[in-house]
Amino acid sequence: MINVILLGGGNLAYHLTNEFLNNAAINLVQVYNRSLASISYLKGKTAITNDIKQLKEADIYMLCVSDNAISELSIQLIFKNKLVVHTSGAMGLNTLKSTSNKGVFYPLQSFSKEKEVNFSNIPIGIEANRTKDEDLLMQLAKAISKQCYLINSEQRKHLHVAAVFVNNFVNHMYVLGNEICDAHQIPFEILTPLIQETALKLSSLSPFEAQTGPAKRNDSQTIETHLSLICENQQKIYKLLTQSIKNTYGKKL
Amino acid sequence: MINVILLGGGNLAYHLTNEFLNNAAINLVQVYNRSLASISYLKGKTAITNDIKQLKEADIYMLCVSDNAISELSIQLIFKNKLVVHTSGAMGLNTLKSTSNKGVFYPLQSFSKEKEVNFSNIPIGIEANRTKDEDLLMQLAKAISKQCYLINSEQRKHLHVAAVFVNNFVNHMYVLGNEICDAHQIPFEILTPLIQETALKLSSLSPFEAQTGPAKRNDSQTIETHLSLICENQQKIYKLLTQSIKNTYGKKL
Repeated sequence: MINVILLGGGNLAYHLTNEFLNNAAINLVQVYNRSLASISYLKGKTAITNDIKQLKEADIYMLCVSDNAISELSIQLIFKNKLVVHTSGAMGLNTLKSTSNKGVFYPLQSFSKEKEVNFSNIPIGIEANRTKDEDLLMQLAKAISKQCYLINSEQRKHLHVAAVFVNNFVNHMYVLGNEICDAHQIPFEILTPLIQETALKLSSLSPFEAQTGPAKRNDSQTIETHLSLICENQQKIYKLLTQSIKNTYGKKL
Repeated sequence: MINVILLGGGNLAYHLTNEFLNNAAINLVQVYNRSLASISYLKGKTAITNDIKQLKEADIYMLCVSDNAISELSIQLIFKNKLVVHTSGAMGLNTLKSTSNKGVFYPLQSFSKEKEVNFSNIPIGIEANRTKDEDLLMQLAKAISKQCYLINSEQRKHLHVAAVFVNNFVNHMYVLGNEICDAHQIPFEILTPLIQETALKLSSLSPFEAQTGPAKRNDSQTIETHLSLICENQQKIYKLLTQSIKNTYGKKL
């Protein structure tokens, strides 16, 4: 049984709390948050506090707080032989200013409170200074997820940028597609199966192999027609991405 | 029972042929292709020909050929009281030069021969000059799909551009994410659950609501860090999309 204390009250804290409470391999000893109100729903399920001095004993102290709160909060965690970890994809191990042992426990998914989460399908990247701590974090990760990886701070920085491309920027492409549909009274739902197929295709093809469309075919007539149909912002993006696709395939074919 | 003759031998032709052969509401009378070899696997299942003069009688003649072959092939189809349709998202109704009645039957999905297709989840946009033909095409569409829409030529042009954004450009974001992972020995599969979640989220949230990330939060420190980590082409795209996301939320919030 791994004893964990969780610090934070945001979306990730909410989902991890639920997961830890329902996982037989994990004992959620306590949850800390600056505001007690937002974790009061945990009363009766685990101990809660808003006083850092009242933190109990545990194996792992897990910070689920915003990136710029990590240093400030961790500096107050003065333990010996305890493991303090943060859960951020963007921050290095040394963002932690605790005097104790340090680690990272990074669940790679985008969380919202409304949407239920199945952690078994969420990849977890872990890192620690000491092999012993790495083992403990790997044990914790494997208790909740099927996909666990050792990812060091340098790799995690790059992984975080890659995630911006495949998540934030992809979603922005959906926003632009939706704009076009709305402007012409086309129900956006007509595109949902194509969107899902594009994502699911990656289980059988690499993205490089899966590429289709006028840019890949170098079909300049279709490209010109498309450009004539869209607004200036959409044109800029269409042109740049078309050029990037052309370069990708021009280079490698 | 709707009698259909299909003309073409590409990916879409292949999948529609299979679907029509296995659908009790549809009688696939014949398949035409310039090269007999690529449709010879149909021998014994339906009539095949490479001679346009040998086309049999049917209700619908469906062209599943490349966009620039539609006019040339359709001009040879001289029927009275028959319906000739094409299956292209990019082409207007009047690309058809047949003397007979005209229509469009546009399955909105990206097809590859290797991957099996379940048409019941593929949206179909239909269009015809006459209400009677619209009804017939709607009947055919409903026999194979749960999502059938009347989409006119003007709408279809815009829908096709929207599809480039949500399919081709999205896949290119996957390619860029993959490049970043490869450059830093990170297995790309670590991003697959995030990618699929980003797509599946659209069943409960609009893309406008689903947007997250540093651009949406206007988190300039993270944006600067990210830009310092990536190559020139990735930087250009990162900057333009970040600006476009900022504009989208600056405008509407």
